[in-house]
Amino acid sequence: MTYLSNDPATFAEDALAGFCELHADTVRRVPGGAVRRSRPSRPKVAVLPGGGSGHYPAFYGVIGPGLADGAVSGNLFTSPSAQDAVSVARAAHSGAGVVFSYGNYAGDVMNFGLATERLRAQGIRAENVVVTDDIASAERPAERRGIAGDFTVFKVMGAAAEEGMDLDEVVRVGRKANDATRTIGAAFAGCTFPGADAPLFTVPDGHMGLGLGIHGEPGLRDVPRTAARELAADFVRRVLAEKPAGAGDRIAVLLNGLGSVKHEELFVLWADVSRLLRESGHTLVLPEVGELVTSLDMAGVSLTVTWLDDELERLWTAPAWTPAFRRGAIAADSGEEAVAEVTDDAPRFAEASAESRQVAGAVLDGLRAVRKALREAESELGAIDAVAGDGDHGRGMVRGIDAAVTAAEAAWHQGAGAGDVLAAAGDEWAARAGGTSGVLWGAGLRAAGEVIGDGVIDAVAAVDAFAERVMSLGGAEPGDKTLVDALVPFRERLASGTWAQAAAAAEDAARVTADLVPRKGRARPLAERSVGTPDPGAVSLALIARAVSEYLREGTR
Amino acid sequence: MTYLSNDPATFAEDALAGFCELHADTVRRVPGGAVRRSRPSRPKVAVLPGGGSGHYPAFYGVIGPGLADGAVSGNLFTSPSAQDAVSVARAAHSGAGVVFSYGNYAGDVMNFGLATERLRAQGIRAENVVVTDDIASAERPAERRGIAGDFTVFKVMGAAAEEGMDLDEVVRVGRKANDATRTIGAAFAGCTFPGADAPLFTVPDGHMGLGLGIHGEPGLRDVPRTAARELAADFVRRVLAEKPAGAGDRIAVLLNGLGSVKHEELFVLWADVSRLLRESGHTLVLPEVGELVTSLDMAGVSLTVTWLDDELERLWTAPAWTPAFRRGAIAADSGEEAVAEVTDDAPRFAEASAESRQVAGAVLDGLRAVRKALREAESELGAIDAVAGDGDHGRGMVRGIDAAVTAAEAAWHQGAGAGDVLAAAGDEWAARAGGTSGVLWGAGLRAAGEVIGDGVIDAVAAVDAFAERVMSLGGAEPGDKTLVDALVPFRERLASGTWAQAAAAAEDAARVTADLVPRKGRARPLAERSVGTPDPGAVSLALIARAVSEYLREGTR
Repeated sequence: MTYLSNDPATFAEDALAGFCELHADTVRRVPGGAVRRSRPSRPKVAVLPGGGSGHYPAFYGVIGPGLADGAVSGNLFTSPSAQDAVSVARAAHSGAGVVFSYGNYAGDVMNFGLATERLRAQGIRAENVVVTDDIASAERPAERRGIAGDFTVFKVMGAAAEEGMDLDEVVRVGRKANDATRTIGAAFAGCTFPGADAPLFTVPDGHMGLGLGIHGEPGLRDVPRTAARELAADFVRRVLAEKPAGAGDRIAVLLNGLGSVKHEELFVLWADVSRLLRESGHTLVLPEVGELVTSLDMAGVSLTVTWLDDELERLWTAPAWTPAFRRGAIAADSGEEAVAEVTDDAPRFAEASAESRQVAGAVLDGLRAVRKALREAESELGAIDAVAGDGDHGRGMVRGIDAAVTAAEAAWHQGAGAGDVLAAAGDEWAARAGGTSGVLWGAGLRAAGEVIGDGVIDAVAAVDAFAERVMSLGGAEPGDKTLVDALVPFRERLASGTWAQAAAAAEDAARVTADLVPRKGRARPLAERSVGTPDPGAVSLALIARAVSEYLREGTR
Repeated sequence: MTYLSNDPATFAEDALAGFCELHADTVRRVPGGAVRRSRPSRPKVAVLPGGGSGHYPAFYGVIGPGLADGAVSGNLFTSPSAQDAVSVARAAHSGAGVVFSYGNYAGDVMNFGLATERLRAQGIRAENVVVTDDIASAERPAERRGIAGDFTVFKVMGAAAEEGMDLDEVVRVGRKANDATRTIGAAFAGCTFPGADAPLFTVPDGHMGLGLGIHGEPGLRDVPRTAARELAADFVRRVLAEKPAGAGDRIAVLLNGLGSVKHEELFVLWADVSRLLRESGHTLVLPEVGELVTSLDMAGVSLTVTWLDDELERLWTAPAWTPAFRRGAIAADSGEEAVAEVTDDAPRFAEASAESRQVAGAVLDGLRAVRKALREAESELGAIDAVAGDGDHGRGMVRGIDAAVTAAEAAWHQGAGAGDVLAAAGDEWAARAGGTSGVLWGAGLRAAGEVIGDGVIDAVAAVDAFAERVMSLGGAEPGDKTLVDALVPFRERLASGTWAQAAAAAEDAARVTADLVPRKGRARPLAERSVGTPDPGAVSLALIARAVSEYLREGTR
């Protein structure tokens, strides 16, 4: 359970605010996360871990000398938006580039990827180091999720940046640390969101979910719970079986508690884990036992091993001084106080032609029509989503379109043309809606806006750009039970027909998704439960297509 | 729930072993707890917090420069024995005396008090600082329990000892810190012991136990759970209402999570707590938000305020470097490596007279007769205790008498006289039995042994000494539903009658305890539940009286 909250909707934000208040001497809050209060006295690479909230001390608990320069912080278990990442990066950047680091989750990969593009367009060097340590999540290392191994990778990069390595070098050692890091976890009970009265996921009584992810993602299997000693043996065996080729015998080790498994239990487990690792011929270098990457009040534990070469060992053992992790003696940062004013990412618009201004007005009106339709459909979309999901799809879509219309209005009043109005709407949609669908709609609208530019609307080209962006970012294919199932027939029909015909095609296709089983799902039983119900994302797309179609008919009447 | 364990019976010990393994570079395990690995280069006062296990980082997590010199660690939620405390004190003592510090619980007060007496008899200066910060536990400050305020008091004393203050000064600042410290807590859900399948105590659904103790002791009352903001206001109002006379406006603050209330929640609460404290005109000095005194996986939170004068502020802000708490820069201890050999507290016996040796043999046989009787009654005593307690009374008594007989045999083989045999038996009983009754039986037998000395047994004098010790240590009075209810009539009848008559009086009195309601109880509903069942401690006393009576009859036949 989560017991202390004011408003579940603002829980993550409220927690970040409280944290920044507590550590106001060293940490400064910025839109999208937090950064060190003092700027470095000379340019250094900014190491920026990030991801959804609810994993303290990941990610903002490790901001400080020897570790992170800032952290990008999304809503609970929800990727931060690209705009969040850009905002934090701009505040933390001191001239030597930035590197985002995060676990390998679709939303994070998308958003940090988009932020990286945008920063580069603004002349800021940006790179990404994706953590893939969870051996239970996939056979192929590149497809694995990032869990507690995040910490080792961040620590190594933080020390490298503090040493003065340049961006390429920091990225190199970060990737080397990730390649040398393996984690296996087990969960005993799920966590419960603020305001929710049931856990996000459950583990059968007396069992443990071996390899279950930190958001309840599928693991290896549920097995009966064992004594600590047997779990230790199983963990050590599984991790050592994944020892990287050519690795030596010196290792960094993390025994990590997820939330409700307490220190006393971790110490009991540690007695056997440490013995077995030593008996396997390894030397343990400054092992850590505690809560380093949590999952609210989830009951779970994980073992992480990083095989060290001389360079990694130097970086792993280097001092660090952060709110949640302190090692060795480190000189206080002698840099100047950071500027109080928040650097932001507010769009500046090119001068628009009269014709484009006229079209921009139509785009704005079209967005308002979509807003009306989504508001009316909010509870229906929620109900569809609740069958197999968390029921917040309607809420998320309304949050997205509300923010998009507000941004489009602001852009319109600042004189923006059609493309800029649509792109601004997309950025705010992505920033405010939350969830993967928010990212996709936001990025898709921005892509459509960029195609339109300072011109008139070529609907087919704009929809093509939207579809390309959504499909390449989301990675879904037709038949996966996503909005792509409605998007593809919509786009095809539009290429040779009217908006009304295309909207009808989308509606038909959305209905047919009721027959499908989703290929990606957070919790295993949910995938099957959804059969018989259409995909909420596909339904939303059809609904928006219909709203635009009716607006165009009425608007051109 | 506690998920990771090998053997519930050795959980606390296993956790301590794992902890000492992890921190083997700085911490050394000794019987009864742990001490710093390196001894100070010049004599310094040894600051020794202690108490039951299950409260990590209290108590062994704060061993290190600037804080504790060692920690005395009992079983889960169970006071360590006097022997544990003596063992840790002897290992930590560097010539300038030791100070035990602990929360105000009957078992701790007894055991550390006994240890203090014993250390003084061995020529080691020893003092006690009792923490009484929990404003919800009693009206009168001296009767209050110690909870998270432990941390502030330990921190201040640790810094004082590190500065080189002498024993009286360290005690003075420790008591000053305690007098300036106030805590209020609330609990949402109880913790579950290893091996148990139900929580030790519960809070009604949707409610919180305001002022509930960290072992489930009665608090103020159960109230409906509120938003974090209202809880913050309530906490701040209650703590400020207890502001000590003459206190200033600079305060140390701890917002402490008990186990399952996570950092994000604490930060949400902190935003309001910090604002309200500031609005009340206070300046917050290095506040701490986190898990400092926990209670396994209990869901709860507490707010502690310590009003600082210049001296307390200097000590509170001084650096410290321990496994669980690190502040500022502190020089590594330059002392020598501690001796590997463990100093122990093994008794050495005075030469006994032939007559006393003969009586000693009788004492040993009497203890064996009691052992036989207790072993036979173990499950019955357990069943009586299970009605309103944790059902381990029979187990504890058998553990105690088994250890007592073993120690008495060893003493007998080393040539001890009657008094020393009984005293040695008492020491081991207290060390091994666990629980309050273990302490009382142990201390009572030692007192009886001291009266006997190298002489013959004056049964009345020995029982008087036993009774005085038990009653002064335990603080119970007739009618409280404890072993005292059987002890008083037993003692009175023995003064003017036979052992058989006295044993019968004890049996009658033990039966009558079924009509009583206990005055002290860990969890509120249990007190009432026990009506109709006799007190297991009183039953044990009657049973032992009967066993001794029968041994004497047969032995003198």
